[in-house]
Amino acid sequence: MKISNEDKLLAELLRLVPVPLDQPLGPGDDCAATRGPRKGELFLLKTDCVAEGVHFLRSDDPARVGWKALCRPLSDIAAMGGIPQQALVTFFSPPDLDMGYWKKFYRGLGKAARRFGVTIAGGEMSRQPSGIAISITLTGFVPEKQLVQRSGGRPGDKLFTTGLLGGSLAGHHLDFIPRLAEGRWLAEKIHPSAMMDISDGLGADLPRLARASGCGFEVNRAAIPCRRGSRTDQALSDGEDYELLFAVSPKKAVSLVNRWAEVFPKTRLSCIGNLTTPQEPPPDWPGGWDHFKKAVV
Amino acid sequence: MKISNEDKLLAELLRLVPVPLDQPLGPGDDCAATRGPRKGELFLLKTDCVAEGVHFLRSDDPARVGWKALCRPLSDIAAMGGIPQQALVTFFSPPDLDMGYWKKFYRGLGKAARRFGVTIAGGEMSRQPSGIAISITLTGFVPEKQLVQRSGGRPGDKLFTTGLLGGSLAGHHLDFIPRLAEGRWLAEKIHPSAMMDISDGLGADLPRLARASGCGFEVNRAAIPCRRGSRTDQALSDGEDYELLFAVSPKKAVSLVNRWAEVFPKTRLSCIGNLTTPQEPPPDWPGGWDHFKKAVV
Repeated sequence: MKISNEDKLLAELLRLVPVPLDQPLGPGDDCAATRGPRKGELFLLKTDCVAEGVHFLRSDDPARVGWKALCRPLSDIAAMGGIPQQALVTFFSPPDLDMGYWKKFYRGLGKAARRFGVTIAGGEMSRQPSGIAISITLTGFVPEKQLVQRSGGRPGDKLFTTGLLGGSLAGHHLDFIPRLAEGRWLAEKIHPSAMMDISDGLGADLPRLARASGCGFEVNRAAIPCRRGSRTDQALSDGEDYELLFAVSPKKAVSLVNRWAEVFPKTRLSCIGNLTTPQEPPPDWPGGWDHFKKAVV
Repeated sequence: MKISNEDKLLAELLRLVPVPLDQPLGPGDDCAATRGPRKGELFLLKTDCVAEGVHFLRSDDPARVGWKALCRPLSDIAAMGGIPQQALVTFFSPPDLDMGYWKKFYRGLGKAARRFGVTIAGGEMSRQPSGIAISITLTGFVPEKQLVQRSGGRPGDKLFTTGLLGGSLAGHHLDFIPRLAEGRWLAEKIHPSAMMDISDGLGADLPRLARASGCGFEVNRAAIPCRRGSRTDQALSDGEDYELLFAVSPKKAVSLVNRWAEVFPKTRLSCIGNLTTPQEPPPDWPGGWDHFKKAVV
């Protein structure tokens, strides 16, 4: 059987291995979280990977690839309301690759690390006969009371997204700014009932958030904020947006909208719909990007 | 310029990024270490990677590959005297790969996780157009006073190795037992002045330990413990032994040898030489396995 669905495969695989019992949230959220260094604080741990031909091309500027490689897991830390700390970098390098490639890559990585307060604590390298691949581990922390998971949404909660969606491949996917400031502010001041980052497209990620919360969802498609040059179907399916998707109670929603405009005047905030009692997604709802979709037989 | 030397490249790359200031040991040891969850305890963090065609073949039993993938970073935790805790698993999967591959892989991984007390806290997957690759992040901890680094060796210290070296490719590299029990016992009872695991071959790893300690070394080649069917040159150069290499003061060495035989009667302990004042390795000293050696132009 070929791999047809990432979520399903990961769930099946995790049944084959011991998983932590004392963990505030199990595998499946944006990051793993365990009791942290200080009382009342959770330690966040995330690995993420980018591969040539999937997340970037050999012809892309290596500095932008380095930026992207670190900013992807930063986006996951942002989605938990967390503060990033240290990264370990593992790269797989084809034997014909020039050393200059990795110097440029590390310059881009270092630029992102400095901007977002991350230090590089180590890493590994390995020869890889075929393609370039990079795996990054990122640690972080979050006050336990401010942790936002995917699973806390309730029917009636309003659904919001930051920024613009769709058309990421034109450049955004290599240059995006992870929503760390926004995620932190939301966790501290608003405490959304559920939050995640949109990496596989709203079409795939919204059903995940709704399912984790035991809810269905309704979306006003006209309210979906499309990047210039993108249509709504692209905003749903392209992926690599690295924006935040979150749910807040109707009561908090008004205050959120007012305060947001003051704190983040340059970042669009869109109310795109609401969570409902459990129901299937609309029949014409697209699935977003699945890394293994093309492998379905 | 092609990549000719892993250590040199990593050192150059780390000059391009911010590194932690408050870290008890910087990048370059077997694991990164930071102040831990509890007072007097260090938190250990390690990433490691295995790639098809480099560390295993497509035809190898996926369960054994899963075992190896987790046991490699476990060997690094062992080399710091540490206790492993949680792992995150990232895998790159070619689109034509059957889902059954990853189930077998996870069974092998789970077997190692249960045996060595590790839980799998999460992970990521990505399509990779060409080859299978896996990156594993492992956390652990060690009492701060028991941390053993590579850099504490002094001239005159006796050099020891566990187990047998060489010929790993015949099977040992997929089935080895990481020396966690031995590493823990050494850290607690003997406190070696320096320790690391032998993963690239004694020929490459001993100069690393000596250099980190600001020492030279002398080796009695006849004392190098060769695996059945291996010669001394293979024991020096083959790599993937995953044994411990450590240094202890001459005073402690006698007591070590006596106590070792009682505690680990089945695990060979060999005194192979000693650290010296700084000097170059012998002119005929081989370099061991370097992942990029084949890429030298």
